[in-house]
Amino acid sequence: MTAREIPSIVSVDDHVIEPPHVWQTWLPAQYRDRGPRVVRDTYSVDWVDGNQVFRKGGEGPETDWWVYEDLEWSHQMLNACAGYDESEWWMGPIAFDQMREGCYDPKARLADMDLNHVRASLCFPTFPRFCGQVFAERHDKELALACVEAYNDWMVEEWAGGSDGRLVPLCIVPLWDAQLAAREVTRNAERGVHAVAFSELPGKLGLPTIHSGAWEPFFAACNDGGTAIFMHIGSGSHWLTSSPDAPPAVTGTLVFLTSVMALTDWLLSGVLARHPNLRVCFAEGQIGWIPYVLERADSLWSKQVWQLREKLPEPPSRYMRQVYGAFFDDRAGLAARDVIGVEQLAFETDYPHQDSTWPRSVETVRGFADMLDDVELRKVVHDNAAALLGLR
Amino acid sequence: MTAREIPSIVSVDDHVIEPPHVWQTWLPAQYRDRGPRVVRDTYSVDWVDGNQVFRKGGEGPETDWWVYEDLEWSHQMLNACAGYDESEWWMGPIAFDQMREGCYDPKARLADMDLNHVRASLCFPTFPRFCGQVFAERHDKELALACVEAYNDWMVEEWAGGSDGRLVPLCIVPLWDAQLAAREVTRNAERGVHAVAFSELPGKLGLPTIHSGAWEPFFAACNDGGTAIFMHIGSGSHWLTSSPDAPPAVTGTLVFLTSVMALTDWLLSGVLARHPNLRVCFAEGQIGWIPYVLERADSLWSKQVWQLREKLPEPPSRYMRQVYGAFFDDRAGLAARDVIGVEQLAFETDYPHQDSTWPRSVETVRGFADMLDDVELRKVVHDNAAALLGLR
Repeated sequence: MTAREIPSIVSVDDHVIEPPHVWQTWLPAQYRDRGPRVVRDTYSVDWVDGNQVFRKGGEGPETDWWVYEDLEWSHQMLNACAGYDESEWWMGPIAFDQMREGCYDPKARLADMDLNHVRASLCFPTFPRFCGQVFAERHDKELALACVEAYNDWMVEEWAGGSDGRLVPLCIVPLWDAQLAAREVTRNAERGVHAVAFSELPGKLGLPTIHSGAWEPFFAACNDGGTAIFMHIGSGSHWLTSSPDAPPAVTGTLVFLTSVMALTDWLLSGVLARHPNLRVCFAEGQIGWIPYVLERADSLWSKQVWQLREKLPEPPSRYMRQVYGAFFDDRAGLAARDVIGVEQLAFETDYPHQDSTWPRSVETVRGFADMLDDVELRKVVHDNAAALLGLR
Repeated sequence: MTAREIPSIVSVDDHVIEPPHVWQTWLPAQYRDRGPRVVRDTYSVDWVDGNQVFRKGGEGPETDWWVYEDLEWSHQMLNACAGYDESEWWMGPIAFDQMREGCYDPKARLADMDLNHVRASLCFPTFPRFCGQVFAERHDKELALACVEAYNDWMVEEWAGGSDGRLVPLCIVPLWDAQLAAREVTRNAERGVHAVAFSELPGKLGLPTIHSGAWEPFFAACNDGGTAIFMHIGSGSHWLTSSPDAPPAVTGTLVFLTSVMALTDWLLSGVLARHPNLRVCFAEGQIGWIPYVLERADSLWSKQVWQLREKLPEPPSRYMRQVYGAFFDDRAGLAARDVIGVEQLAFETDYPHQDSTWPRSVETVRGFADMLDDVELRKVVHDNAAALLGLR
């Protein structure tokens, strides 16, 4: 008996740690001294509502700090821990020279993908946060818009440019203006970028919700230009937990709840019905909970009192055909693939975060491959994501 | 071919609408004029954060109002809509004389259970809210304690007393004092009451969480006296939604999220490990999402960084043997029964709420019976709940 062949992986959720030069190189010259830059300084630890907060300056060792307007921000080790053994993980900052090079260097990243049987990878931003919230929160919006454009230019030219299509560009948009966001989607679509990061819960960012109608120019631009929307857990800057003194593992277990909210919003909002070419993908929320949401939403749709039929001609579950659920390790979800739709599932390796299966993602795939036939396995690990990302 | 025989139903989640006389009859005489009582008055409608709020007095028609200290509170039609066709539902108050008698009268309730093939039923409180929050929120705690005791005396003597064990008493406790709560559990256990309502998220009520250690006397009393803890969705007086302008159906779909939080709390807290005879049941949260939570919690438990092993000698999913998930209509959950544990599932009819399947719960059972063999069907519809409630 020979080992089963595992298709090469297309991952819809990895992360790039932007190297220190991004904005210093790609911003127009007049903005550079005010754009995001990296400095070296010590840190101190504070506790706020039971959570550790790291502050620039103080008694601790040195690390790298991003500075930009009022922001002083360091990378967290658990978000850049590729290559470290679990026993070496720590809850605190990590400097660039402590990170594996694949975190921030595209050539090193391609080598790490080769090690992990990954053909192609879509990477979410880190310093801008999952959909560019950092720029939406700053005071100077002219500078912020330039920073968004510079990020996208770097992403397209430098990160993805030399990768022969293997590092798939994911653009960000100026979240504070739906018209500008639409323009940025179109600017990027014209150079072949068909993936945009968006907030799973824009209302939690103080922005209009997807129910408000305010995002229609942005959704229309995505629908018309064939740009898929990718929403990472936490892209509403909103984490749910049960109680302030719950063990961290409670919050760690519950990180999917914002994805549940977001999927429910999207299925019941009518946005997918109004924009039938629009495709959306929820990253890192996993999939095992989706069948219950579909079942419950359909049940409410069938009752007049909820008044859903005007916006939703079909039951909510039917709009799953426009939705992709990304998972890294979820047998419960795969067991229910016929309810979710096997074409709607996409694998992710989550490099270089603590949930990542790198460099053993093939072992992870082997761990669930027994549940799937060859066609299903290929869809889940490669084909669905390749179609969503427009790979040939 | 004959129709498959459906076992009689034991429902772990129904609701009693307390009749107006409860506290006027069962409170000691000196408290009666200050205890909860019902008056007739008009109502007006206000909007607060996008939600309708009904206020006593004003231009609207008359209805019944519970008054007690600073509280003026009317029943909502969707919580007492048994017997009404869906087309007659409204979003507003309902008076006692508009309700089906089975809502508040035990003999009429037994007749409605007969109509619905229900052998036995556990009913949550209505005016006190799902676990007696109303008494915990009031100023005069001497009066509130008397009200809790009066409720339990009425529940045991009058509601359940003449039902030949078919109306299973569910007691409430003074939530503001874990020692008093333990005493009330024991007082009731001594007269054969082995079910107590508790908050799924006590921290959201401003009370200590289950992680705090403060509830140990209460948990110990339940563990030692064989009293199971029942937690209804919403018993943290905390409802999650995605955004203030989401359609009501979004919130309606997401009502299970507080159950997800609560189950995660319980599985990771160590309370079940410390009290191995304790059994807890989550009501109306349904079950289709449970496999994902078990899988995710086990995955974190297996990683040292989350530091769970000291409190949890076994993986979190193993403590599901002490947990029951109640469902009213959930094929996704039944499809995953081997992961959850078929012994941990309990059916509910949710009379007289809008999610209720009454008087057609047998049809609902037939709708999923094809997924189960005879032994499983009997466990899910009757045996598991009968064991949990101590029925012979």
